[in-house]
Amino acid sequence: MAKVNRQITLAARPVGFPKVSDFHLVYSPVPSPGEGEVLVRSVYLSLDPYMRGRMNAAESYARPVAIGEVMTGGAVASVVESRHADFYAGDFVEGMLGWQEYAIARGHELRKIDPGLAPVSTALGVLGMPGLTAYFGLLDICDPQPGETVVVSGAAGAVGMIAGQIAKIKGCRVVGVAGSDAKISWLLDDLGFDGAFNYKTVEDSYGTLMELCPAGIDVYFDNVGGTISDAVLRLINAKARISVCGQISQYNLEEPEMGPRWLGQLVLKQAKVQGFLVTGYAQRFPIGLRQLAKWLNQGKLKYREEVAQGIEAAPQAFIGMLQGRNQGKQLVQLS
Amino acid sequence: MAKVNRQITLAARPVGFPKVSDFHLVYSPVPSPGEGEVLVRSVYLSLDPYMRGRMNAAESYARPVAIGEVMTGGAVASVVESRHADFYAGDFVEGMLGWQEYAIARGHELRKIDPGLAPVSTALGVLGMPGLTAYFGLLDICDPQPGETVVVSGAAGAVGMIAGQIAKIKGCRVVGVAGSDAKISWLLDDLGFDGAFNYKTVEDSYGTLMELCPAGIDVYFDNVGGTISDAVLRLINAKARISVCGQISQYNLEEPEMGPRWLGQLVLKQAKVQGFLVTGYAQRFPIGLRQLAKWLNQGKLKYREEVAQGIEAAPQAFIGMLQGRNQGKQLVQLS
Repeated sequence: MAKVNRQITLAARPVGFPKVSDFHLVYSPVPSPGEGEVLVRSVYLSLDPYMRGRMNAAESYARPVAIGEVMTGGAVASVVESRHADFYAGDFVEGMLGWQEYAIARGHELRKIDPGLAPVSTALGVLGMPGLTAYFGLLDICDPQPGETVVVSGAAGAVGMIAGQIAKIKGCRVVGVAGSDAKISWLLDDLGFDGAFNYKTVEDSYGTLMELCPAGIDVYFDNVGGTISDAVLRLINAKARISVCGQISQYNLEEPEMGPRWLGQLVLKQAKVQGFLVTGYAQRFPIGLRQLAKWLNQGKLKYREEVAQGIEAAPQAFIGMLQGRNQGKQLVQLS
Repeated sequence: MAKVNRQITLAARPVGFPKVSDFHLVYSPVPSPGEGEVLVRSVYLSLDPYMRGRMNAAESYARPVAIGEVMTGGAVASVVESRHADFYAGDFVEGMLGWQEYAIARGHELRKIDPGLAPVSTALGVLGMPGLTAYFGLLDICDPQPGETVVVSGAAGAVGMIAGQIAKIKGCRVVGVAGSDAKISWLLDDLGFDGAFNYKTVEDSYGTLMELCPAGIDVYFDNVGGTISDAVLRLINAKARISVCGQISQYNLEEPEMGPRWLGQLVLKQAKVQGFLVTGYAQRFPIGLRQLAKWLNQGKLKYREEVAQGIEAAPQAFIGMLQGRNQGKQLVQLS
């Protein structure tokens, strides 16, 4: 009897916030690898904000997921059967394997993971795409200097927590913005942020930021956008650098949001705003991973994971992540 | 009998667009230079958009002009009397001399001009602050490459006309946005822009830009902001670079204007937006001036001046410039 592969497909394009009914759980036979291919069974599936964009019909930097197609996503997997010379059954790998239990991949699409180096789930977090996103987005675009003030929005998320800690390693004063008191405590007590606040409960983000950043803001690492960014922009110092990683506050809006214009502020402050995709740094991934692993092993980088159980839990966990309900990197553990 | 110095002072802080009554014409005695100082008589006064910011009470990157104080501004002047070893009567100089006929300056505040090199008025235009602004703002921030599409807003203004021509020198396809048909003809027929349109008369700036930039927009040099920038932002290519020089559309608003949020677009396009002040490049001014003078003498840079007559004409000419009525660099010739 053929084994069964459970997959999550896109059932409908969401209007505003995705609903569980925008996804389907489907069953298909586990495929066999062709020449040069590898059959893998996923252990952890990564859930990330960028996936919301792939659910839209509009082409952006990547092809949208088609209706009925398996949702796109990174995963850590173990090799079941290999017809590629570089991989053996039992190897751990990471790749864009989709929201499914089994996948076929070509060898060059997979990155081999050393399970002795760190828990394999970190290949989807601090030692994977989120870690690299924080590393290059902060260091390459903002070049934070000792004593500078760095603000991170989405500071307790998979990318933000690493960005803030790298800024601490670089000797900066780091202030985090997040959406729950538990997240704020974690940033302050466990990650050593110099300041943090819950934007959902403070009355005045601008005033709070001003208090927490008495010397102004030199660097802003933005995962969220919207009114938090508006407040930060008013407080930037001369020669400020702003790295735009994501805009999760805007992804589920049914109508585009308007905001204050601030190009004039960029002129007055001789400031830079730069958007980026981590894929733009692909050639330097090995350098970034080596440094992140070193910091991790030195105890300078901490991380936190929120793990949902079973592929059927992925849609709800994804929606929860878009709502900020996760505490740390959102994963789905597949049995 | 002491000679009379006619000066324009700030009479009132404008609300919205400045009015002629926001300025005063006052008479004072021509002062005498102290040790190390130079008495100059201005020949051309420069009128520039940044002066609008100095009329506000708010501190920005520079001190505001106080009520009753002579308006700030650059000018070309001839030396009347020198008590500084580097200057002689009859020398031409450029400096921040204010809206007045005579001024006292210290030697290090003045730049000597060679009247044999080019008409002395160019020290306020192509071979002065506007030229340097275009040079560094375009080349340093955007690094335009041959074949790329460059859009310039305020393209017929003192800075825009130079920025567009430098982009042409660099082998780019250059599209200008300006506010009158006469300006558009000049950009297309005299400066050799590849495309240009009058944003005041086209129905759809976005559609027009899309037609004129069939390969998308790689570089945007922005003097204007507002809805023109909104349209440009929708059409940028991957890795686009945006240099923000000014935001003249916003300077006279009584209420801050809202606009569509586009940080998300910067992420998708891995694009950069950088504001700048030309003073940030002061150490490299000699390099910039040398290159601009070379291009000017090679006939590769053209310019146009709008010259008002007499210090008393300065307020109206300034207001006209903010309204876009000038054809080229706005100067006031002092008798």
